[in-house]
Parts: sequence; C-alpha cells; structure tokens
Amino acid sequence: MKKANKKLHSAIIIIGNEILSGRTQDINVVSISNWLNGLGVKLQEVRVIPDIEKVIVKTVNEVRKKFKYVFTTGGIGPTHDDITSKSISKAFNVEYCYHAEAYKILENYYEEGKFNIGRRKMAKTPKNAGLIYNPSSAAPGFFIKNVFCLPGVPSILKSMLGGLNNKIVGGNKILSKTLSLRTVESEISVSLEKVQKKYKNLEIGSYPFFQQEKIGVSLVMRSNKPKLIEACTKDILKFIIKKKIKIITRK
Amino acid sequence: MKKANKKLHSAIIIIGNEILSGRTQDINVVSISNWLNGLGVKLQEVRVIPDIEKVIVKTVNEVRKKFKYVFTTGGIGPTHDDITSKSISKAFNVEYCYHAEAYKILENYYEEGKFNIGRRKMAKTPKNAGLIYNPSSAAPGFFIKNVFCLPGVPSILKSMLGGLNNKIVGGNKILSKTLSLRTVESEISVSLEKVQKKYKNLEIGSYPFFQQEKIGVSLVMRSNKPKLIEACTKDILKFIIKKKIKIITRK
Repeated sequence: MKKANKKLHSAIIIIGNEILSGRTQDINVVSISNWLNGLGVKLQEVRVIPDIEKVIVKTVNEVRKKFKYVFTTGGIGPTHDDITSKSISKAFNVEYCYHAEAYKILENYYEEGKFNIGRRKMAKTPKNAGLIYNPSSAAPGFFIKNVFCLPGVPSILKSMLGGLNNKIVGGNKILSKTLSLRTVESEISVSLEKVQKKYKNLEIGSYPFFQQEKIGVSLVMRSNKPKLIEACTKDILKFIIKKKIKIITRK
Repeated sequence: MKKANKKLHSAIIIIGNEILSGRTQDINVVSISNWLNGLGVKLQEVRVIPDIEKVIVKTVNEVRKKFKYVFTTGGIGPTHDDITSKSISKAFNVEYCYHAEAYKILENYYEEGKFNIGRRKMAKTPKNAGLIYNPSSAAPGFFIKNVFCLPGVPSILKSMLGGLNNKIVGGNKILSKTLSLRTVESEISVSLEKVQKKYKNLEIGSYPFFQQEKIGVSLVMRSNKPKLIEACTKDILKFIIKKKIKIITRK
C-alpha cells in the first residue's frame, strides 16, 4: 500500500515565455494541484520552460520517466509560438498529424469557411493521442501515455480537468488541516521538529504570515490518513497550550 | 556581443511544499523576473521542488551548471522544514556553519534573551557564503558562487532584491511592447509567423484574452534591442491595418 502510494506522484510543465518574462502570473498550478489533492495524487515538481522545441522535448522526456502523471499547460493554440503538440510528438518519436476526431469537433464548431489554417493547426496531435474534451471553446487537449496536455488559459484549463478524472488512477484523498497561531516560528521550532520526527508519513509545514499588522504562524498538516492528522494535531496542541499560545483559527 | 548575451540566462528554484500543495500562490517569480528584465538577465527556467534535502541538492547542482545565475526562494527560516541553507551546503560540499556577520546582525536585532535556538539557526549558511541583507526583518539571505538564496515571504524577498543589483553583472535592459488587438489568434497566425521568422533575435508572444465579455489578442514583443522592437511593430501593423483589425491599446 505504501509503495503504491509512493508512486502517485506527478509533475506540471508550464510551457510559456509569458510566465518566464514576468508578464503573466501563473494560476494554473494552484488549480491543478488542488484537483490532484482530491484524486490522491501528489504534485511533486513544477517546471516552467520557454517555447523552445528542444527544451520541451528534453524536459518532457526527463519528467515523464520520473513521475506517474505529467501535465503540461500552454502552447496548444493556433499561433507560431504554440509548439507543444509538435514538440510532444518529437519527444515520443511519433508522427505529428491531424487527429480525425479533433478535426471533426473543430470543423463543426466553426461556421462554414471559418475553419482556417490557424484553427486547423489545433486539430493536430501526436499520432494516436487521446483527446481531452474542452467544454469552453471546443479545441481539445490531448494525452499520450502519461503526459496530459492542457491549454494555458486558466478558465479553459479548469473547465477541462473534470473530464480527466476517469483517466487518472489516484489514491486516498490528500487532506490538510491548518492551525493558525498568534506566535512566531522561532518560539515553536524545537517542539514542532520533535512532532514532525514522530510522524514520518505526514508533512508539517510552518508558514509565517502578516495580517492586519499582526504576525502569526500557520501550521499545515498534510496526509492521506485522517487519523494521522488527528493524532498529530493533538501533539501540537499539547505544546501550544503549554506555551500559552493563542489559536486564531483551525480548519 | 551576441554570445555574451546568450549567457545571461538565469533560473529560479522555488523550495516549498506549500506551492506544490496548492495552498499558496507563488508571486515571487513575477517579482524576480521583472527585476531581472531591468538588469538584462533573462529568466529561462523555474522549478518548484519539495522540502526534501536530496531533491534540493540534486536540483541545485543540475541548475547551477546550466545557468549564469540561480535564485532560490524559501526555506531559510527557523523551523524544521527550513532546510535550504543546509542543503545548499551539501550541494557545494562545504560546511554548514554559523556565519559570524549574520550571527551578529541577528543577535543585535533581538532583545536580550530572545535570540533563541530557532533564531540562531537563521545565522547558519554554507561556509564562506556572502550575505544578502534584509531591510525588512534582519534575517539575511546568502549567496555562494552563482546561487542566491532568498526567503519565500514575498514582501521580504522584494525588499532584498535591490541590494543584489551590484552582484549581478547584467546586459542591456530587456524591453517589451504590447499591441492589444480586437481579433482572434487564428486570424493572424499565418502573417504573424512570417514576421517572427524575419526577427530571430526578438520574441513575439501571442496571448488571447477575454475582457468585459469581449475577446482579443495581445501580441508581446521582447528584445534588448529597441530598434528591433520598432521595426517589428511596423511589420505587424502592416498586416493588422490590411486586415482592418482594431488596435485596442499599444504600450
């Protein structure tokens, strides 16, 4: 069981000069990660890379061997900088060609005479790829083996995740519990480290925050075992109460 | 000249389970990238990795050989999950020890008797590391060779970047110009690709957007040569005018 769970790790590859240049704030990682938590799949790495074919090929080939699932975002539109589909074809060493079903979906979607060369490009995938349907704007994503290619536009990406649920074999939902405390990290670091050492299959994160001119620390426990979170919370509360630290929220 | 510029590439390594878990939205990439644009250094890769020592060591050693500058964010606080400094020491195979100046800074910052074991941890760096001063909350970052380690808290990170300016040998400022158009990508993709092929030392990005229920496309040109941007803009305007596409904004 432990071994199987260990394998439920995934990565995201963000393909996009616009993220690297600082022009665009990525918000897709948060969407994908929260969706994966519900499926019991852990996001273990993210890479942001430029729209350069050889970089995409190398990165995809490196990452897809390391993780059970890989998600790419961006680069599946109609313009010159949309090279994800072609690059993924190269990474898998398969033909980059029209996908009959994708072609049909797009042909039906556009008015007659409007299915131009740019739009036709969006019907091209690696040969024999599966489609990821797009309820927002027709143009589908695609998957080949363990690599799932999604668009970069956040609202469209989000609308497509649900359709992927049955393609991801996950595990127990990853749960988290947060205790927000009126303290500073250095006051609790020693006690907290002792608790973390006791719970090897649970992650405790410690995050300082500033809110309405007051400082505090959020302790976040994450695990797919609710009982572990419960036991760990008790151990943390023990030293919190002893130190007379105020609990601001727990959720 | 071209060769020298080619080397002005950098990477960011975000060390933080909280980003991977979807709990926290990273905003440091945008801050660092925009700061680097001004210094003429191009951000070419970002990796988000978990708080696991062997992953940090491996990633840092891989990335620091590929890029002129590497910036890490996160993991330099006082708690058990703050393992950046120790991991970077391992990556460089140097001792992880108290930094005399950092120790002094922190000792002076805290009231007598408040410089506890957690806080003392923040004075530890890889041996002979240089300090990155922190005008917000005293605890310094550090650098060793081409790896610059910054905190994860966005406001503190931002306040520390200015102090790094004289440690980064950059190039010509990277400029960008954006034309926002009332069109769709597929209408301009063929013409745009022709222009991109003409300007090899300039990046053109094409980004669809939805705003107030209307769709449009932003074309972003990026280069450290203002004349190239000017010439490319002219070529784009030629086909835009011919196609009778409305220009919403240019900046």
